[in-house]
Amino acid sequence: MKAAVHVTLKPGVLDPQGKAIHHSAETLGFEGISDIRQGKYFEIEIVDSISESEARNAVESIARDILANPVIEDYTVEILR
Amino acid sequence: MKAAVHVTLKPGVLDPQGKAIHHSAETLGFEGISDIRQGKYFEIEIVDSISESEARNAVESIARDILANPVIEDYTVEILR
Repeated sequence: MKAAVHVTLKPGVLDPQGKAIHHSAETLGFEGISDIRQGKYFEIEIVDSISESEARNAVESIARDILANPVIEDYTVEILR
Repeated sequence: MKAAVHVTLKPGVLDPQGKAIHHSAETLGFEGISDIRQGKYFEIEIVDSISESEARNAVESIARDILANPVIEDYTVEILR
């Protein structure tokens, strides 16, 4: 089974890396972009002997405890297959 | 309009950061995880005066030229709305 975790900055938290990418895009001539925000993405491979609900619980905990900083970041967990 | 870009390491490319996260998860008692790989995620906000196909072309170019290193990374582009 595979899970996907997206970690994104909460709305309102400054994203200087996204701003730098946005600036690069404009410098290279890409117009019509109003904002770029960078996040993190994790693919987690889970052994098949674990049920989907157990896997979801484990991945939620890993996302909260290890992958995201809940003060400034949001996360979403998705079980892919 | 909003676009999402996922940038992931190509299969076979070593991911020491993912390995470190996997090790942390095991140390904290999460079992049943066979692999964790880290990628990047970008949300790109596009002005509404651009058509969806133009937006897709622009975002594909930005992903190829700025966001991903095509030697070691794959990318996917998705138009969200």
